[in-house]
Amino acid sequence: MRIDILTVLPEMLESPLSCSILKRAQDKGLVEFHIHNLRDYTTDRHRKVDDYPFGGEAGMVMKVEPVDRCISALKAERDYDEVIFTSPDGEVLSQPIANTMSMLDNIIILCGHYKGIDYRIREHLITREISIGDYVLTGGELPAIVIADAVVRLIPGAIGDEQSALSDSFQDNLLAPPVYTRPADYNGWTVPEILLSGHEARIAEWRHEQSVERTRRLRPGLLE
Amino acid sequence: MRIDILTVLPEMLESPLSCSILKRAQDKGLVEFHIHNLRDYTTDRHRKVDDYPFGGEAGMVMKVEPVDRCISALKAERDYDEVIFTSPDGEVLSQPIANTMSMLDNIIILCGHYKGIDYRIREHLITREISIGDYVLTGGELPAIVIADAVVRLIPGAIGDEQSALSDSFQDNLLAPPVYTRPADYNGWTVPEILLSGHEARIAEWRHEQSVERTRRLRPGLLE
Repeated sequence: MRIDILTVLPEMLESPLSCSILKRAQDKGLVEFHIHNLRDYTTDRHRKVDDYPFGGEAGMVMKVEPVDRCISALKAERDYDEVIFTSPDGEVLSQPIANTMSMLDNIIILCGHYKGIDYRIREHLITREISIGDYVLTGGELPAIVIADAVVRLIPGAIGDEQSALSDSFQDNLLAPPVYTRPADYNGWTVPEILLSGHEARIAEWRHEQSVERTRRLRPGLLE
Repeated sequence: MRIDILTVLPEMLESPLSCSILKRAQDKGLVEFHIHNLRDYTTDRHRKVDDYPFGGEAGMVMKVEPVDRCISALKAERDYDEVIFTSPDGEVLSQPIANTMSMLDNIIILCGHYKGIDYRIREHLITREISIGDYVLTGGELPAIVIADAVVRLIPGAIGDEQSALSDSFQDNLLAPPVYTRPADYNGWTVPEILLSGHEARIAEWRHEQSVERTRRLRPGLLE
């Protein structure tokens, strides 16, 4: 899988892309990240990527031209499955969306910034708008990394123990059951006895009950 | 505002915390970040922060002790308004939650990792569990930065133009209207004429209509 990220803040992506699963997946050749600084696609002396909005309003707006030039250059090299814009207006990221995206070959993620981006970019260049949630962030860089992390960890081989990703919360529309590790008694805080019983079938049953109970209490919407 | 982040991957937080709004807010003295490596709170030679789960299951579980030691050390120094755990089970982050949190003084954010954290941490040490959305990520580091970004940008003075944050999507339960910048005609892609009219009242009316129409179409839930 190849992920091209278009941004005005390439330095913001550095440490998250060079840690943990995203680093390991790159080292294993499962994913390639290509970061493009939109300023490199400007044609003016000041490398201007934003400008004042028409109609007068607070905040700056990201210009069409650098984005169009960058996306055109990439599309001239290969086909892309999706050109994604991270926006609070987009469809809200979910585990099923992440599952689907993990099977794509080439995607572009455009990070929005400033007050917004020229709407013509969204009308003509973007194929899918994704929001990571109903809250406002400074820019699209964090959402781009969140999408990348949610998707890349699902590529077979990215996580050491594949079992692990399949038993995650949401994969079966249930929240995960509580987990515990040693010591069994920490200053009087104890582990449920069933987990120390060694009785596999009863432990599995307890876990399922806990998942259903937690889901019903905390995320009833998942059971509908 | 002071934000203490507890993590096993401190290096992952580096570049996002030293860019953009989060950097500027620190430079202006509006927020302090203190990153704590949980390995520094272990007592064994191998600095072990995780262990196998009781009852046998795939994946490792974060241990109680280092987390308890770190939180206790911090609480001995000052009072904390919230000890937040980033979890897919938590209440889902929203703009109203971000607004409320932006008025707090001291918060701790514990980044989960591995298959999960020992449930006793959640029962005894955590005051609030927050999810950034219904999808699974490798760890709690990205959610911690997302929460920090959503919250810190709302602190007065963090964004240059305060007007700007107030007219964001969600602040009035409406999505933002489309924005455009120069050129008015980009290879035949044109800007709506109303925005070039100079007629302020009609532009404001158009924007409101667009916001309502876009919200109704893309996020009907916000209007209920």
